Amino acid sequence: MKLVRVDMTQLQVQQTPVPAMYERLGGRALTSKLLLEQVSATCDALGPHNKLIFAPGLLAGVNVTTAGRLSVGAKSPLTGGIKEANAGGTSGDTLAKMGIKAVVVEGQARKGEWHLLRITENSAELLPADDLRGLGTYATADKLQERFGADSTVISIGQAGEGLMTGASIATTGQHDQRSNHAARGGLGAVMGSKGLKAIVIDRARASGQLADADLFRTASKRFAAELINDPKTGQKGSQHLYGTASIVAAVNEIGSLPTRNFSSGSFEESAKLRGEHLRELILAREGKVGTNCMPGCVISCRNQHADEQGKPIVGTLQYETIALLGSNLGLGNLDDVAQLNYMCNDFGLDTIETGAAIGVAIEAGLAKFGDAASIFALMQEIGKGTVVGRMLGNGAVATGRILGIRRVPAALGQAMPGYDPRSLKGNGVTYATSPQGADHTAGNAFGARKEVNPLAAQGQKELSLKLQIIAAMLDSTGLCLFARPPVLADPQLLIDMINGVYGWGWTKEDADRAHRDVLRTELEFNRRAGFTSADYRIPEYMREEPLAPHNAVFDVPDAELDAVFSTL
Amino acid sequence: MKLVRVDMTQLQVQQTPVPAMYERLGGRALTSKLLLEQVSATCDALGPHNKLIFAPGLLAGVNVTTAGRLSVGAKSPLTGGIKEANAGGTSGDTLAKMGIKAVVVEGQARKGEWHLLRITENSAELLPADDLRGLGTYATADKLQERFGADSTVISIGQAGEGLMTGASIATTGQHDQRSNHAARGGLGAVMGSKGLKAIVIDRARASGQLADADLFRTASKRFAAELINDPKTGQKGSQHLYGTASIVAAVNEIGSLPTRNFSSGSFEESAKLRGEHLRELILAREGKVGTNCMPGCVISCRNQHADEQGKPIVGTLQYETIALLGSNLGLGNLDDVAQLNYMCNDFGLDTIETGAAIGVAIEAGLAKFGDAASIFALMQEIGKGTVVGRMLGNGAVATGRILGIRRVPAALGQAMPGYDPRSLKGNGVTYATSPQGADHTAGNAFGARKEVNPLAAQGQKELSLKLQIIAAMLDSTGLCLFARPPVLADPQLLIDMINGVYGWGWTKEDADRAHRDVLRTELEFNRRAGFTSADYRIPEYMREEPLAPHNAVFDVPDAELDAVFSTL
Repeated sequence: MKLVRVDMTQLQVQQTPVPAMYERLGGRALTSKLLLEQVSATCDALGPHNKLIFAPGLLAGVNVTTAGRLSVGAKSPLTGGIKEANAGGTSGDTLAKMGIKAVVVEGQARKGEWHLLRITENSAELLPADDLRGLGTYATADKLQERFGADSTVISIGQAGEGLMTGASIATTGQHDQRSNHAARGGLGAVMGSKGLKAIVIDRARASGQLADADLFRTASKRFAAELINDPKTGQKGSQHLYGTASIVAAVNEIGSLPTRNFSSGSFEESAKLRGEHLRELILAREGKVGTNCMPGCVISCRNQHADEQGKPIVGTLQYETIALLGSNLGLGNLDDVAQLNYMCNDFGLDTIETGAAIGVAIEAGLAKFGDAASIFALMQEIGKGTVVGRMLGNGAVATGRILGIRRVPAALGQAMPGYDPRSLKGNGVTYATSPQGADHTAGNAFGARKEVNPLAAQGQKELSLKLQIIAAMLDSTGLCLFARPPVLADPQLLIDMINGVYGWGWTKEDADRAHRDVLRTELEFNRRAGFTSADYRIPEYMREEPLAPHNAVFDVPDAELDAVFSTL
Repeated sequence: MKLVRVDMTQLQVQQTPVPAMYERLGGRALTSKLLLEQVSATCDALGPHNKLIFAPGLLAGVNVTTAGRLSVGAKSPLTGGIKEANAGGTSGDTLAKMGIKAVVVEGQARKGEWHLLRITENSAELLPADDLRGLGTYATADKLQERFGADSTVISIGQAGEGLMTGASIATTGQHDQRSNHAARGGLGAVMGSKGLKAIVIDRARASGQLADADLFRTASKRFAAELINDPKTGQKGSQHLYGTASIVAAVNEIGSLPTRNFSSGSFEESAKLRGEHLRELILAREGKVGTNCMPGCVISCRNQHADEQGKPIVGTLQYETIALLGSNLGLGNLDDVAQLNYMCNDFGLDTIETGAAIGVAIEAGLAKFGDAASIFALMQEIGKGTVVGRMLGNGAVATGRILGIRRVPAALGQAMPGYDPRSLKGNGVTYATSPQGADHTAGNAFGARKEVNPLAAQGQKELSLKLQIIAAMLDSTGLCLFARPPVLADPQLLIDMINGVYGWGWTKEDADRAHRDVLRTELEFNRRAGFTSADYRIPEYMREEPLAPHNAVFDVPDAELDAVFSTL
């Protein structure tokens, strides 16, 4: 397999064989290791020395269901530490099928010049892209698919990434006109913008990747798909298929962890109107789409396409975190409003979590009103216009709190918290505080374990978070979707068999476990070099002191427990 | 002597004896030690757990010339580390005469409620101050002197501090209608604002402090004054008396270190119009005042009061750093413009260095034009109005760069650089990078040593900076003005004699040296606990790579040298 090295300073592209030390790494494991080895951790994240890396997971390109997620890594301009975010769509699968282990974007184009990277089976080249400047991610994808073919995959940034806003995401398309997959977190879109790279267009790949042991692989991958189909959650009658991530709105509200009005309450009186069940009813009544997928061949098919009252598609897929941060967190109990805000974030190329949290903080400062959609839309429009107010919000919750003098900022390591208040889901608090990725549910979400470990208790969260963070590293390195966890957790050999089937490495469970733990070690070391200490790996002070309704919970996991999370890594 | 403890949460004031461990500390030595011992270094700087401490230097209150500077300390909301800033005026001297070693402000009043602290010879109490809300520092001082007597000293914050802007200063008055002394750096005004404390009013003190050995003291203090009077720089024919700090404009321009247009050049074609000599001529021609002082009894008397063409006073004292940051750094070659901008900063209660640097960054982003005073005044007015643009600027250079996507931000440890570009005055670069106070010339200014250590060479800067940082700690702990260095450096026994004359401690030179080094140790330890590592103690990346005209200098002191500055502390 090969690396595609893109030098934005010289405007040159090179394809080189993968050095041996990176051969057995994929997705997040690869982006993080490349960053540790090749990027100075103290570099300016928006300067020429940062690198932006795109890497499919180990199981991409061979038609493993849900395994096509694309990891994107860089030093984060939001957290100042290492970052990986991943997205569905067709990009991960396509790159892997072309034998591309990673695309590494280095240097920096001249200010104001925009380029696009075109990748085909046999070539990779930079082309001028000044005509795309200022376009949102939808128009960028439309224009590039018109030019290069409807079956091309388009990775792009919107106005937020072009404007170096540290809440900017990177969008990637799925099949044909499918949009809205974002490597959203950590401001990676700003890194792409800082390089002068507006988009990557990838031709459709013609063949699957090769298999070292086809029998072993097929047996395992078929069983994997079958188990997902038969799983009560991910199967055709399961809540994850039927309602997607939005299936958990009611349950998060129930445990009092639903971010409401800038994390000032953990339950929202209008949460019933935000539930996944309601979302599905609405979409079906309007002849929108449910049960589609973001990656070809996904057997879970949790994706929905929200439509307005006239049946016109607004945005897909409306997800739980977006509903929490742009809905209850802003006091909005109307999915149409949330969908419109989601569309705007997607088009500008913005993380919905970061942006929702930033707007929540801005509302606390009086810039809009909780529950007043018009005032909130007005703020969101500022981001697209690139005004100072908009740029403040586009730079996320911490920057917004700093500018507006608000100390109730729900963030850890500079990154906004997703849809679980850590005071009443303390396992997530431990993950937010200690993950080298900053506050990020995909780094280790304790919600699913709420029946095993009391979410209100301080005890047991440390061990739970570590376990979940290792699992997350596994998923992010193989390219698997979070929803695909159950079969590989029930039988870890299943994952090993798929990996050995593709590569013939003869991995044992211990090899795999070591590899996944290594991801965290690598990232913690990068952050250590970047200057992070235990003083950074913390939950904001106000969350330790301000009780959260309805349980009057504070975050009370002792600092010493936070510091000890990785002691057994 | 006593401590005045002000609990803003309970609205209670207590006067307590000074604990033994703090007895031999004054000014910065005391504020820093109290912070290390009593404040969690990881606390929210704008939350209830930070403390704001006012402390006169060891030599205050006994009529030592220039020794009345008041130190103000807190965890800085700008740098996230420890901070001390000091100011002239009558506050330091008056508090010391009342036997007050420090005023320690703790807790936090209810949001939106404002209070003032009144201190008399026998009492200290909190009074409501809602009528002062929204006033600038000039109007606040006027109103309080009207109420409590024209000979009261008023310490106050303006709109910036009330609004928790992290570029906010704390103003203190001098005799009668003398204004414009600011403990400017590090956002201490925001800490005062976060406590709900709008002002402190201190009655005139009736008697001097007591002396342990009056003869020893009088001999030394008289000699100290005499040497300043006879010094070629500080005496009546000296450049520091005649032109104040503005005396160095030409020389800094000459060595190519004058910040020009957001630190994009080290020399300014209009610098002649900003020179101290020109300033004096202008003021004299307009019947403004020169040769006055900020502290009663100062024999240097470097203070000027700039007047407009009609002879109406604009602002005093117009200082070098202000001229550099609000003048050449903004492309302005007109002292009247600089004076007006200075007045606005003083009134809003803003650090002129931080604000000038922030506006420079904003101009680079296109919000105004270099050299175009009207567009710059318009930006400054936004700060007073408290708009989002104004709040961004009021939060300083780093916040402004973040919001506007500008990476050329002249700052270290989150704080803007003063008027010496570190690429062509590398000793200052070492101080900016390594001082626990962030980029701050008062922490150790190498400009005066430019003839001993080549400012363009990387060699020798490490040792020079350490020496200067220890001297700065000495000045800041005794309450002495920077200009008063020569006699105490020429004969360290002079300082020891004055201290022993007041306190009878029998200090040796070694005791004093240890005490001054301890200040730095204390502050470095606070910052270590706050999470600072060598990754933080750095000069911005672009200054290592972008050559500065006219010498095409980059900052090339190796990281290892920066890390070793305190190895011999």
